[in-house]
Amino acid sequence: MAGNTFGHLLRLTTWGESHGPAIGGVVDGVPPLIPLGEADIQPWLDRRRPGQSRFTTQRQEPDRVRILSGTFEGKTTGTPIALQIDNVDARSKDYSDIMDRFRPGHADYTYWVKYGIRDYRGGGRSSARETAMRVAGGAVARKVLDHLVPGGVRIRGALIQVGSLRIDRKRWDWDEVARNPFFAPDAGIVERWSSYLDGVRKAGSSCGAVIEMVAENVPAGLGQPVFDKLDGDIARAMMSITAVKGVEIGAGFGAAELSGETNADEMRMKDGKMTFLGNNAGGVLGGISSGQDIVVRFAVKPTSSILSPRRTVTIDGRDTEIVTKGRHDPCVGIRAVPVGEAMLALVLADHLLRQRAQCGP
Amino acid sequence: MAGNTFGHLLRLTTWGESHGPAIGGVVDGVPPLIPLGEADIQPWLDRRRPGQSRFTTQRQEPDRVRILSGTFEGKTTGTPIALQIDNVDARSKDYSDIMDRFRPGHADYTYWVKYGIRDYRGGGRSSARETAMRVAGGAVARKVLDHLVPGGVRIRGALIQVGSLRIDRKRWDWDEVARNPFFAPDAGIVERWSSYLDGVRKAGSSCGAVIEMVAENVPAGLGQPVFDKLDGDIARAMMSITAVKGVEIGAGFGAAELSGETNADEMRMKDGKMTFLGNNAGGVLGGISSGQDIVVRFAVKPTSSILSPRRTVTIDGRDTEIVTKGRHDPCVGIRAVPVGEAMLALVLADHLLRQRAQCGP
Amino acid sequence: MAGNTFGHLLRLTTWGESHGPAIGGVVDGVPPLIPLGEADIQPWLDRRRPGQSRFTTQRQEPDRVRILSGTFEGKTTGTPIALQIDNVDARSKDYSDIMDRFRPGHADYTYWVKYGIRDYRGGGRSSARETAMRVAGGAVARKVLDHLVPGGVRIRGALIQVGSLRIDRKRWDWDEVARNPFFAPDAGIVERWSSYLDGVRKAGSSCGAVIEMVAENVPAGLGQPVFDKLDGDIARAMMSITAVKGVEIGAGFGAAELSGETNADEMRMKDGKMTFLGNNAGGVLGGISSGQDIVVRFAVKPTSSILSPRRTVTIDGRDTEIVTKGRHDPCVGIRAVPVGEAMLALVLADHLLRQRAQCGP
Amino acid sequence: MAGNTFGHLLRLTTWGESHGPAIGGVVDGVPPLIPLGEADIQPWLDRRRPGQSRFTTQRQEPDRVRILSGTFEGKTTGTPIALQIDNVDARSKDYSDIMDRFRPGHADYTYWVKYGIRDYRGGGRSSARETAMRVAGGAVARKVLDHLVPGGVRIRGALIQVGSLRIDRKRWDWDEVARNPFFAPDAGIVERWSSYLDGVRKAGSSCGAVIEMVAENVPAGLGQPVFDKLDGDIARAMMSITAVKGVEIGAGFGAAELSGETNADEMRMKDGKMTFLGNNAGGVLGGISSGQDIVVRFAVKPTSSILSPRRTVTIDGRDTEIVTKGRHDPCVGIRAVPVGEAMLALVLADHLLRQRAQCGP
Repeated sequence: MAGNTFGHLLRLTTWGESHGPAIGGVVDGVPPLIPLGEADIQPWLDRRRPGQSRFTTQRQEPDRVRILSGTFEGKTTGTPIALQIDNVDARSKDYSDIMDRFRPGHADYTYWVKYGIRDYRGGGRSSARETAMRVAGGAVARKVLDHLVPGGVRIRGALIQVGSLRIDRKRWDWDEVARNPFFAPDAGIVERWSSYLDGVRKAGSSCGAVIEMVAENVPAGLGQPVFDKLDGDIARAMMSITAVKGVEIGAGFGAAELSGETNADEMRMKDGKMTFLGNNAGGVLGGISSGQDIVVRFAVKPTSSILSPRRTVTIDGRDTEIVTKGRHDPCVGIRAVPVGEAMLALVLADHLLRQRAQCGP
Repeated sequence: MAGNTFGHLLRLTTWGESHGPAIGGVVDGVPPLIPLGEADIQPWLDRRRPGQSRFTTQRQEPDRVRILSGTFEGKTTGTPIALQIDNVDARSKDYSDIMDRFRPGHADYTYWVKYGIRDYRGGGRSSARETAMRVAGGAVARKVLDHLVPGGVRIRGALIQVGSLRIDRKRWDWDEVARNPFFAPDAGIVERWSSYLDGVRKAGSSCGAVIEMVAENVPAGLGQPVFDKLDGDIARAMMSITAVKGVEIGAGFGAAELSGETNADEMRMKDGKMTFLGNNAGGVLGGISSGQDIVVRFAVKPTSSILSPRRTVTIDGRDTEIVTKGRHDPCVGIRAVPVGEAMLALVLADHLLRQRAQCGP
Repeated sequence: MAGNTFGHLLRLTTWGESHGPAIGGVVDGVPPLIPLGEADIQPWLDRRRPGQSRFTTQRQEPDRVRILSGTFEGKTTGTPIALQIDNVDARSKDYSDIMDRFRPGHADYTYWVKYGIRDYRGGGRSSARETAMRVAGGAVARKVLDHLVPGGVRIRGALIQVGSLRIDRKRWDWDEVARNPFFAPDAGIVERWSSYLDGVRKAGSSCGAVIEMVAENVPAGLGQPVFDKLDGDIARAMMSITAVKGVEIGAGFGAAELSGETNADEMRMKDGKMTFLGNNAGGVLGGISSGQDIVVRFAVKPTSSILSPRRTVTIDGRDTEIVTKGRHDPCVGIRAVPVGEAMLALVLADHLLRQRAQCGP
Repeated sequence: MAGNTFGHLLRLTTWGESHGPAIGGVVDGVPPLIPLGEADIQPWLDRRRPGQSRFTTQRQEPDRVRILSGTFEGKTTGTPIALQIDNVDARSKDYSDIMDRFRPGHADYTYWVKYGIRDYRGGGRSSARETAMRVAGGAVARKVLDHLVPGGVRIRGALIQVGSLRIDRKRWDWDEVARNPFFAPDAGIVERWSSYLDGVRKAGSSCGAVIEMVAENVPAGLGQPVFDKLDGDIARAMMSITAVKGVEIGAGFGAAELSGETNADEMRMKDGKMTFLGNNAGGVLGGISSGQDIVVRFAVKPTSSILSPRRTVTIDGRDTEIVTKGRHDPCVGIRAVPVGEAMLALVLADHLLRQRAQCGP
């Protein structure tokens, strides 16, 4: 209820601050007998890990995950899986210039108003560091999906826009995503993004981004009518990621400009199977998965931690300015790619169990 | 869990099909001693009621709400409030042309795959008729907000785009909204939308729309960090409305194109109060309300029920075509305005109670 | 959260006061394609119905249930099932002698302190009338159990003690339960209870009772370790029934006096199947069903509505006396039998769906 | 949903097995600004710690708790509080004699049937070791209660029966509880229990017990009508403790034998305050606290881990016998006292927040 648990049947509860001794998570509701070890989780964390290129924060965190419970002899037991990552590079520094004032665009102010107290070291719980546990939990969710869905579920994300520079969708190649530091599916954009981001970084500024994710081989029938629509839960999951300001499914906002004839994906039998002739729906109709690819996009705002002096106020109500030094991502959208994938995996695995509960296997 | 309940502390559970005897809802968790009668709810339902102009469905439903429990001598008692609306104009008709085949872009197919059974009369539970109870529940949520927040919370919505025709934001006038059948805040767009929609309607087609909502005087501090962010819950609430495909908060997708300097709303003291110098955040920072206006937009796809013949398949797997006759909204986005407002009210009232629980009054 | 919803995957939400126009319930999460009509529910309500003998309240309520949603052509559709019963015999009477003072042992005082308002007509929401919807919801749960468990699940209850008069367990005959107005499984006790209760009734007094319930053919594996133990949820379900003050499973409080050797039910193979050589566990080990009969007992206190004058206080703090006239059950424990069965059915059906979600069919 | 989280607004999620590296818990929903350190939790754990007398298990666990998140400069921040205890004395031993067969009366069999896998080392998740985290979480709940309720809430438990040996209630002295290894409130029973338990221990047997708990200064108004009654949630909380088989409130099962006149606690004004003239209700009327002492009793069965050979079956279906060596409590009921107190604290603190949410401070 206080909002640190995600999901209904597959549940991830996370804890920990940016500058505490560790961060952790508990995954409850995992079906038993699924092979699971740390090696199933670590690679996903490595993709999100900071300090891997000059375009992300230079904080050095190995983000080494440990499983502390819930498995026995290499398999899940159906009991809660505790995951933990020690904080290693939480530098002791002088916070006097930010502890008494609020960073514009940051959660500093709202945490203060809500709780009357905040852990100003590194943002505490509002730090993007919190998303590491989402990625770890998402890795467990992927195992659940792969265990229960014949053929497995493939969830992939890519960066499709940085600032106002968009990829060319015609050159989309999933294989490219792993070959550049941006998760870009278009090799042609990499150099332009590099030079743009170098400029942003040198200016001590930051920029936004748009991510697109696709989940393939999702069974039809996931999701609930009315309030717990699959796309509703996806929207909430994405919007819950730090700095996300917009979410859309399939044709998304563009659907508003289509005619009924163009928008509705027609249907035809093909090799004895029902198929759709388009995917404006993004794989969800009436809140329930249709068996098509789930297609989701979300927008990430520019980081609020920038070097330019900004006007702000102090906690005791005086006008002042603030400059946020330290090691920050010039474009948090980049590292949001693995986080978005993880959240999508968590939503799908939860709904898979919910569907199995009500409608059977 | 099966998805017909919304909210945690203020909860709306709805039931009923388009062509059953009635639709209803139960609002649980309402604080006691709030004056509440049917007259507090009916006006909001009247705004959503079909058949009020030639631009919405011609089904005639008085949508007369009754309160069956939870109040005593004109005040809430803290016990569940049951709301009910009889279905009056559910015409008996011949469904043979739709009962054995799926409307493209409609939930027909996914309900069938999920449940193996569907109430094909009028769409059953996937009908937009279901949203009437959201409006009724939202009316109760407004009363809760007004009772607990000094000065009350004002939640208003407007249609800002129909097809590709956008309003001129410079001419925004909230008073206009009640004066035209589109909830348009720009008097200058009304004639253009009228003639455009007449064309859509005569062609038996449909079109999409974009709605914007603003909540004023929302206390700072609502929302939970991490998974239950206020904007996450708002996104889910909007995406759960029939036909919605995208949601954004504040600058939304546009934030991706802003620089860190431009995007972050600076802060200054004014008359002894902290104020923001912009509202790209849309009133939410780090998932918690900042005290600024909450600004939300969502996109509605064109109705899938259209007169043009579309390619589809039958439930026993044959290719065929379908034409959807009957009384449908050419632009469901219009009547989505009061529905969006209601969902926003439900989210805010729920978070207000959650905040009161954890952090006190 | 406000406590009018029961269950996680199979959920019953109830509403309505003793003296309002109707009472109702919504059952959400029911699997689709289960044959269900009003005739499946009415017989269970008839067992609980008041006015069937001189030993229960003389209020005449036909308790005719209507299904308002969630079924189509005689089968469940997977969408919420709305149930409704009109209040027929809510006599208009003079409440002036109870509206300003509290009945000792009744919820009058605590509702008043909690909410600052109460519907004093017939007890409002704290009336035993509320349990009718539990019975209706329990009837739906029975259908779910019978649909999903091969051979069905049999849930039966019996009255085993009235005041201090206990049945003779050696004469237990389930067939007797339907033959007397007490749900007594021992024909030999009926006359003694009749004459004892006649005395209680004539004295304007009331008495307590103990109920025992047995669920047969419950699959092994239901329940969750740690907090959501099956017996924990059963205990909560029973204790949530009006006037219940104690619950026990299997040997119950008696287990405290057994040695480890006597208490633990030994195991042996029999015809290739594992069997237990006793059932002190009452069918639950470590919070999980063992496949044995689930055996539950609960104690019901005497009704607080009695004719003898009792010392009490008024809402404005004056000492006074109170006499509760009206039509009351001298022994509410009798009608608690079908209510207990219904709650047990709801718990078991919910856990059956939960087990299917996590561990599969 | 998988049952490792307790509570709605104040939530405890626990994880960890008896023989894993550690056990842990996350407490979410704690109000901010409450002073909290490890020293507030450790003393409660010390009371439950094994190996403190010859009457409990000889496993040596310092049970040293660490707080890993959720506090800043000695105060709660409103974010999740992670608690952790390393397992120190989980002896490596030969499990070959129990890994392939089931202990009668133990959760071995039901875990196996439910999950198809079990951590047989020390019982895994079904071990009483799991209750340590309940005590730690309960310590946090006590801080919440003391912070929010003027004068604080006092929750105390005592052992009132071992085997069939009951205390003399007339000699009840709370000060005695800390002076003997049994939490006995009656000094006169200590020697009898000692010699009885020595006999049980030497015989390799075990015995049951009954615990009574009293919560003082609980505000009136806590609890929800209908399904979430305060006593219902207490009953579930107690029944969820390992080995508990029965729960009762106030007069409990004894209420069945009382007349309406005797049972109902009369009311009188005293010094301008409403008072009850008895407490058969145990502090709860209609599911809502009355302001009187909350009085709860629960029965603990004898441990199933005993030295006498018992008939059982193997996992592959052969008849055999089993003897459970190792370090076990001859009477788990003793150490259940601090666990019961902790669970009562968790229920009360959760309902306090729920009440504040709906009805205000």
